[in-house]
Amino acid sequence: MSVLPSAFVQLVESLTILPGIGPKSAQRMAIHLLMKKPQQAKVLAETLADNLDNIKHCTRCQLLCETDLCRICSDANRDQHIICVVENISDLLTLEQTGTFRGLYFVLMGSLSPIDRIGPEELGIPGLLQRIQNEDIHEVILANNPTIEGEATAHFLASKISKKVKVTRLASGIPIGTELTYVNDHTIHQAIACRKEVNRPTETVQ
Amino acid sequence: MSVLPSAFVQLVESLTILPGIGPKSAQRMAIHLLMKKPQQAKVLAETLADNLDNIKHCTRCQLLCETDLCRICSDANRDQHIICVVENISDLLTLEQTGTFRGLYFVLMGSLSPIDRIGPEELGIPGLLQRIQNEDIHEVILANNPTIEGEATAHFLASKISKKVKVTRLASGIPIGTELTYVNDHTIHQAIACRKEVNRPTETVQ
Repeated sequence: MSVLPSAFVQLVESLTILPGIGPKSAQRMAIHLLMKKPQQAKVLAETLADNLDNIKHCTRCQLLCETDLCRICSDANRDQHIICVVENISDLLTLEQTGTFRGLYFVLMGSLSPIDRIGPEELGIPGLLQRIQNEDIHEVILANNPTIEGEATAHFLASKISKKVKVTRLASGIPIGTELTYVNDHTIHQAIACRKEVNRPTETVQ
Repeated sequence: MSVLPSAFVQLVESLTILPGIGPKSAQRMAIHLLMKKPQQAKVLAETLADNLDNIKHCTRCQLLCETDLCRICSDANRDQHIICVVENISDLLTLEQTGTFRGLYFVLMGSLSPIDRIGPEELGIPGLLQRIQNEDIHEVILANNPTIEGEATAHFLASKISKKVKVTRLASGIPIGTELTYVNDHTIHQAIACRKEVNRPTETVQ
């Protein structure tokens, strides 16, 4: 039996559900919360319970929201004819930070992975297909990550929708600010295959 | 304004109070809690709130407990005449794991640090001194860590209690299983200064 109170042991166990947190870190976190930041820990407990009760997925793009439609889908100023498909919320926020894209999104919340039993239904792909069918969509940008799973998911989506609508994929190539020495072979291969003529202005997505 | 619900943004902010967790990790944690583990996250929120309401410090040794006395202090089988002073709960658990020590503890919950306004009162040292005065204590083991702050705290404690009771300090030296090459100069210096004659049995703490 632990010398510590059972409620505390349970808290440490609960904290290990956090990604990348093992028993030792969880114990340090629990002590930190209770001893150093009890006020903020109270807010954390309340906010977490509140989120679990109130946060749901946008019925149109699957982004997190408190109402039926998320803030992007209910923003009339955004281009309603172009959908950017992203793997997860982090990717969406990264794109939003740049301010480059002003269309709508669809958040897959993952990639296809038969081994983990994640098929098209689990990612909400039928909803995306229906949306392309029903709404006046001119283009779908597949912003899936250039990983094996991401590419496979993008390929699957392209096969489903490329007959109905223009489908594009984010360009792959040398990241700005990197030296060629540090870039992997696949990226260099892509960069050479998709090389651009100099002095010809590149198109910008609007 | 963020495209995400304000409650969610608040949850991410709340999670950054955890030690070593920045905004990016907090966001990943929040998504993980809400999307992947809603059931366990609910338990986490409840357990945290429960701990904040019910966990307090043992009136005798400052360890976490649900009642007035912790499980160690209320265990009559432990040696009531020897106190081991540790810096924090992790250190106490590490010592307990070994099963070597069967006396009582006093948990300082930190080290003296005038720059952070942590003086003897903040660590509960007056309570420790009173305990040595009132109880039948034969020995106090100072198990403060061999860091600058730990050594300073141990030195301060020794100066306060060495006239009333036998005071000992955990031995410093080469960790078992290490090679000399990887041990720092201070440790080697200590190991040479405190060298032991071979074949003479060492005392064991009881």
